[in-house]
Amino acid sequence: METLENWQEKAEVLIEALPYIQRFRGKIIVVKYGGSAMVDHELKKSVIRDVALLKLVGFRPIIVHGGGKEITKWVNKAGLETNFVNGLRVTDKDTMEIAEMVLNKINKGLVSMMEKVGIHAVGISGKDGTTLRVEKKLSKGQDIGFVGEIKEVNTRLLEELLENDLVPVICPIGSDDEYHSYNINADDAACAIASAMGAAKLAFLTDIEGVYEDPVRKETLISRMTVSETEKFLASGHVGGGMLPKLQNCVDAIKSGVSRVHILDGRIEHCLLLEFFTDKGVGTAIIADNEEE
Amino acid sequence: METLENWQEKAEVLIEALPYIQRFRGKIIVVKYGGSAMVDHELKKSVIRDVALLKLVGFRPIIVHGGGKEITKWVNKAGLETNFVNGLRVTDKDTMEIAEMVLNKINKGLVSMMEKVGIHAVGISGKDGTTLRVEKKLSKGQDIGFVGEIKEVNTRLLEELLENDLVPVICPIGSDDEYHSYNINADDAACAIASAMGAAKLAFLTDIEGVYEDPVRKETLISRMTVSETEKFLASGHVGGGMLPKLQNCVDAIKSGVSRVHILDGRIEHCLLLEFFTDKGVGTAIIADNEEE
Amino acid sequence: METLENWQEKAEVLIEALPYIQRFRGKIIVVKYGGSAMVDHELKKSVIRDVALLKLVGFRPIIVHGGGKEITKWVNKAGLETNFVNGLRVTDKDTMEIAEMVLNKINKGLVSMMEKVGIHAVGISGKDGTTLRVEKKLSKGQDIGFVGEIKEVNTRLLEELLENDLVPVICPIGSDDEYHSYNINADDAACAIASAMGAAKLAFLTDIEGVYEDPVRKETLISRMTVSETEKFLASGHVGGGMLPKLQNCVDAIKSGVSRVHILDGRIEHCLLLEFFTDKGVGTAIIADNEEE
Amino acid sequence: METLENWQEKAEVLIEALPYIQRFRGKIIVVKYGGSAMVDHELKKSVIRDVALLKLVGFRPIIVHGGGKEITKWVNKAGLETNFVNGLRVTDKDTMEIAEMVLNKINKGLVSMMEKVGIHAVGISGKDGTTLRVEKKLSKGQDIGFVGEIKEVNTRLLEELLENDLVPVICPIGSDDEYHSYNINADDAACAIASAMGAAKLAFLTDIEGVYEDPVRKETLISRMTVSETEKFLASGHVGGGMLPKLQNCVDAIKSGVSRVHILDGRIEHCLLLEFFTDKGVGTAIIADNEEE
Amino acid sequence: METLENWQEKAEVLIEALPYIQRFRGKIIVVKYGGSAMVDHELKKSVIRDVALLKLVGFRPIIVHGGGKEITKWVNKAGLETNFVNGLRVTDKDTMEIAEMVLNKINKGLVSMMEKVGIHAVGISGKDGTTLRVEKKLSKGQDIGFVGEIKEVNTRLLEELLENDLVPVICPIGSDDEYHSYNINADDAACAIASAMGAAKLAFLTDIEGVYEDPVRKETLISRMTVSETEKFLASGHVGGGMLPKLQNCVDAIKSGVSRVHILDGRIEHCLLLEFFTDKGVGTAIIADNEEE
Amino acid sequence: METLENWQEKAEVLIEALPYIQRFRGKIIVVKYGGSAMVDHELKKSVIRDVALLKLVGFRPIIVHGGGKEITKWVNKAGLETNFVNGLRVTDKDTMEIAEMVLNKINKGLVSMMEKVGIHAVGISGKDGTTLRVEKKLSKGQDIGFVGEIKEVNTRLLEELLENDLVPVICPIGSDDEYHSYNINADDAACAIASAMGAAKLAFLTDIEGVYEDPVRKETLISRMTVSETEKFLASGHVGGGMLPKLQNCVDAIKSGVSRVHILDGRIEHCLLLEFFTDKGVGTAIIADNEEE
Repeated sequence: METLENWQEKAEVLIEALPYIQRFRGKIIVVKYGGSAMVDHELKKSVIRDVALLKLVGFRPIIVHGGGKEITKWVNKAGLETNFVNGLRVTDKDTMEIAEMVLNKINKGLVSMMEKVGIHAVGISGKDGTTLRVEKKLSKGQDIGFVGEIKEVNTRLLEELLENDLVPVICPIGSDDEYHSYNINADDAACAIASAMGAAKLAFLTDIEGVYEDPVRKETLISRMTVSETEKFLASGHVGGGMLPKLQNCVDAIKSGVSRVHILDGRIEHCLLLEFFTDKGVGTAIIADNEEE
Repeated sequence: METLENWQEKAEVLIEALPYIQRFRGKIIVVKYGGSAMVDHELKKSVIRDVALLKLVGFRPIIVHGGGKEITKWVNKAGLETNFVNGLRVTDKDTMEIAEMVLNKINKGLVSMMEKVGIHAVGISGKDGTTLRVEKKLSKGQDIGFVGEIKEVNTRLLEELLENDLVPVICPIGSDDEYHSYNINADDAACAIASAMGAAKLAFLTDIEGVYEDPVRKETLISRMTVSETEKFLASGHVGGGMLPKLQNCVDAIKSGVSRVHILDGRIEHCLLLEFFTDKGVGTAIIADNEEE
Repeated sequence: METLENWQEKAEVLIEALPYIQRFRGKIIVVKYGGSAMVDHELKKSVIRDVALLKLVGFRPIIVHGGGKEITKWVNKAGLETNFVNGLRVTDKDTMEIAEMVLNKINKGLVSMMEKVGIHAVGISGKDGTTLRVEKKLSKGQDIGFVGEIKEVNTRLLEELLENDLVPVICPIGSDDEYHSYNINADDAACAIASAMGAAKLAFLTDIEGVYEDPVRKETLISRMTVSETEKFLASGHVGGGMLPKLQNCVDAIKSGVSRVHILDGRIEHCLLLEFFTDKGVGTAIIADNEEE
Repeated sequence: METLENWQEKAEVLIEALPYIQRFRGKIIVVKYGGSAMVDHELKKSVIRDVALLKLVGFRPIIVHGGGKEITKWVNKAGLETNFVNGLRVTDKDTMEIAEMVLNKINKGLVSMMEKVGIHAVGISGKDGTTLRVEKKLSKGQDIGFVGEIKEVNTRLLEELLENDLVPVICPIGSDDEYHSYNINADDAACAIASAMGAAKLAFLTDIEGVYEDPVRKETLISRMTVSETEKFLASGHVGGGMLPKLQNCVDAIKSGVSRVHILDGRIEHCLLLEFFTDKGVGTAIIADNEEE
Repeated sequence: METLENWQEKAEVLIEALPYIQRFRGKIIVVKYGGSAMVDHELKKSVIRDVALLKLVGFRPIIVHGGGKEITKWVNKAGLETNFVNGLRVTDKDTMEIAEMVLNKINKGLVSMMEKVGIHAVGISGKDGTTLRVEKKLSKGQDIGFVGEIKEVNTRLLEELLENDLVPVICPIGSDDEYHSYNINADDAACAIASAMGAAKLAFLTDIEGVYEDPVRKETLISRMTVSETEKFLASGHVGGGMLPKLQNCVDAIKSGVSRVHILDGRIEHCLLLEFFTDKGVGTAIIADNEEE
Repeated sequence: METLENWQEKAEVLIEALPYIQRFRGKIIVVKYGGSAMVDHELKKSVIRDVALLKLVGFRPIIVHGGGKEITKWVNKAGLETNFVNGLRVTDKDTMEIAEMVLNKINKGLVSMMEKVGIHAVGISGKDGTTLRVEKKLSKGQDIGFVGEIKEVNTRLLEELLENDLVPVICPIGSDDEYHSYNINADDAACAIASAMGAAKLAFLTDIEGVYEDPVRKETLISRMTVSETEKFLASGHVGGGMLPKLQNCVDAIKSGVSRVHILDGRIEHCLLLEFFTDKGVGTAIIADNEEE
């Protein structure tokens, strides 16, 4: 049975969130949504409600998502052949067509989930309003098909959506000068959008606990690094494959004016709220050299 | 070789468009895009450029499109079984998933084509901003799956996009109170949107020349009908299967305040411009009883 | 030691507040601040922080306060004589002067407390911008001095302050047509302001647990009454002295369009948050007859 | 008889105008209206409709006109004597009075013609809102009366008219510091206004085909010159009397930020449309050195 | 020599104006400018400065002027023949042309005078922005040429000018559906404009002291009449030729919502200020039946 | 008896004010209200009406007031002890409490007087909206209690009030970083506010005739000094006690961008109007070195 004391403790929790709410009011937060948090239904609902709360208390969230394993599933379903160049899958026209369909499906699914919790959202791709302009990305000089690198973010549509109190949900597809569709790495897209929008925060929902000095020793989890430290760490040669481009993205984002980048463990329920409304950091935060919180 | 006279004739054509431009300046025009105009590449480019011109001279176009034969193609590709109820295909969860993917692909493709001619467009489904709220549509009382009937159009997002000088491109998917996705007949969606937005015009791009009193006698093509005449015609029992719901939509739209509905032959290049900027009507216009142009 | 589970429970509390925040977003809430909550320092800080949180999550609070026992203290300090008419203290010119000084001091003290928690507040009296126009209030036909009854609320200044994201803190002094100062009952002022501003809620912080059917039997605490029930209850003749005008105020407020009036026990910490963000009602709510939450 | 093909050709003409419309949308275009285009009734109507079309498709035109031969006609009618200094007519007080009356009559006549084609226009002189401030212009040091040189353009009134979707029609009269009226050369006025308003284009409607390298050899018509080439040409000493100040004006305008100046043959119907909406240039264009179209 | 007391008396005069300024702040006042006040240079300057002061203290004046005797002078100068119908001069095309020129000259002269005292003014005719739409006015069924009767006042341009802090100076020329120019009686124009603009006051500057019950007995000057009294007076048959249509205009204006109409003696310096800022009425005021000042 | 001539003379007075009104339209004027002008009832009414007139003709006045002798009166009434440090009274907590009450009483009294003459005013202290942030001011290194020195003026609330056409009436209380109340010298507060708001004028109402070169020789009254001259004068060592900080304030204000500071004799009725609307200066004006009026 809930007693009055229980209820008052709950009220205290709300009060504790006060300074965090005040600090980030009106600020833009880009959430890169991916990994387990996109697969597990409970986690998915938890992320969506976390974003809803961020929105309601005054933050201005933008969601960027990837396609995870769904693209592969549908490519297989369609019985498409897959070619590799330098170990990378080539995105030919047919694959791109399927990728675009799957990403848009996921995109509108997230929109529905946001609407369901009462938050008006709009799902767009980087092609809408020419938001993401790309050029072909080569892999060691070789053409791997419709894989794009962002040249320019046109922020106009995003600004209008935010201005009108809507949450943009973005799938990482862009267009080149000929208006062909290109697949973009979702981490890259989130980073470029956070930089272009002058976001206060960029959070990556991942399937890891954060960055380790030495991945085999759990106790070496880094909870905070300055951008200089991150660059040294990158230069050290000890950063593993998947983490390297992500950390490089973090460095770029901070240098473009994003105040803080978070690599969060998306498998922990409410990791966004824990990070933003409490002193319990979950994961690794990359901060500017001169930042003092 | 072009002579000065040729050029001056061209200028005269522009001048002839003057009164039409003046009449519809700032007016909303909903274009239901479908049929051959969605398949033939030249026609597709022609429609897009027509809409671009309408936009540039001051109209505010909204495009609503269907999925044509592409959905069937992809359903087959995915090897899905198809069930029928009262002769109508049942849209089960898997079919709906594919339908949504295909419609979004077409949607973003149209956006790209608009952007290519320099017009900023945004592709949304009726789920974005809960624009189209639906309830399940039964076929003679029987459940045929995720086929929706529009209960409410929330115009807020569309108004914002128009306000910001963007062309909305809408695919006919809506959500019910549980935020599940439903397929909507594109003609119905166009009609509901035109009514809710107070459009001045609603144009259906079709694969027929217009409405015939007697379809087998080409000379009985009706170029203009009042809404009363249309209702009488509908009551006469002579209206064929495909045309019946479309004409009913026309009647509904006019009664909701749309000034004029056009059933255009989308196979004729520039049919939109011919209809709106010249005295050459192409197809059948349904007008209000008291309208005098 | 706080474990991850503790933190996640806290996050759950925030998530639970979601539907409440959504429901009242942008709504005006008038808080009549008085009684113990004005004396006990810890309670005072708790009320202020509750209001701050209400403000930050999107409510638009207005505080109306009385002078409590401070006026008496200062009147005594100044060695003023006190006259009574029908058992009511006469507010002569000197008493009014002191009352005004004391109320303004309390007013600016509340402003400081709000500013201290980071919320911009502005302390005004009903004389500023001629917000509260009064006429002399007689006690059974007898003049009891500068005691005013509100004739008109000029909402312009309050609207401007709210529009500019400021919290108005109002002391219950008004001016008559000759611009003399009059003391106003703070409950009356709160009720008149809530009505004129179209507030969604009006909350009285009191020193009682709520309204009892029978005050000597604690178990008869009424947690919710419709306005009709309240009127019947008032007509029953069982309502005690202090509660009668307050309940009458509640009835008037509901009839003027305020959706809900709360008589809260200000001695319970966070009573505002408990009432507005949880299902734990503390005190008595008066609701419109047709209201269904 | 017009066939469907004819109509489709017309539509193609509209489509051809698309890129031109896009390029100049929202841009200010100053049209110096004079010469035959002001006398021949058909040409006059053609110019007005051209300007109307420019307006409707999104340009923001400003018309500056002179008085042509009308002033002389009315001066003669009034039986005024004419004095000359250095071969220039002296504008004494009486002549100025008549000039002002005639210019205002022409001004309001143009306004009527614009209104007739459905474009809201406002006829002002440079005295309204102190738009054109002048000082006396001397001819080789000698006073020739109320002939003014523009010192300052106050753009406020013009900006307001454009902002309110109105076409300003301006007659070249200004006021000095004592608020006396002065006649201004209409070419100078058009140039000063185009510069001050940051016009994208300035077009002079003249009675010549354009600028010739050698006026006696029609084949030497120059269709495009950079501003440097124009300056060299001016320095060459080969530029004839009437053309010299006009070309100097063109150079000044380009240097003040006008992108392009056109000397058009106003005797050719629709010369404005031909120049702005087709690739058929009519006359001579002066462009900035670094311009690449 | 001015003493401190003299200066303080001056300050008192300003203070006396306080309640008048307060009452009419932001109100529109239409001044029909005519008669001696347009001829005598000192009076002219006095009127202009009065209007400037009205403007500066917060009124929004609109000036409507006639052409007085100048039109006749210029018609004679041009040696035009004059025809009469029912004793009224026929305004043929040539006469209208001259009238329009003269009116525009006077118009821009008033603009200059306003600008000279630092008030930004814009001189327009009723043709600008199609402000005054007229139809031909017949004299006992006979055509007397380009004499117009106002059918409609399009207030858009006037509202924009007022909005932008400019004083409109209007000459009474309108256009018919074919956009021909028509001369309008200036009193009629002032009355129609005051009605359409919802003016608080309409003041006629005349050459008489006001309305007399019996013109031969100066002591019968009426200083105030209600609209009913005015109608009775008009019905009495005692109202002389020139005054009759003016009084009829006054009645119409009051009935269209103008609060008060003043027939002022324009020969008295500062008659506008005397009327609006002091208790010294000069002339006759027509007020609504229910008005109590 | 008032004759027409009398009235016309009055009108001339209004006209004489024209250029002054024009010069200061929309400009901010800070009036430091103190001394006799706060005690004598007639003078008080005269000041208030002067400010009302300034407001109505377009100035934007801000009033800053002190507490004069009232604070001392109430401190005595409350029987508080007074301690001195370096000859300065120590403002302990109790004294500060009384000072704040008295200042707020005076503040709301001024608001009432403004409202009475029809001007909407809002009485605030420097604590509202954290308008005045202070730090403790020491007297030769010694703590003299709650006496504050302004560190920062937050102009947001003042700007909003002015924007909304309200006259701010400010009492000189500020808050430190802990949000304690501090008394501020009213002259300092007026100066800091004038500087921060970019006031055009700052006027001190004093009980002296102005600044004298030699106070014992009345004929040495200085009517105008440049800021350099004032600094030299301050450096000369001839400036008496009370005047020294005031002149230093004047110098600081001018250097912060206030165009002109006036030390006026508040005992002369309408001294504000005399100074601002006539050539009769009353008191001493401090002007910038490069100012030429």
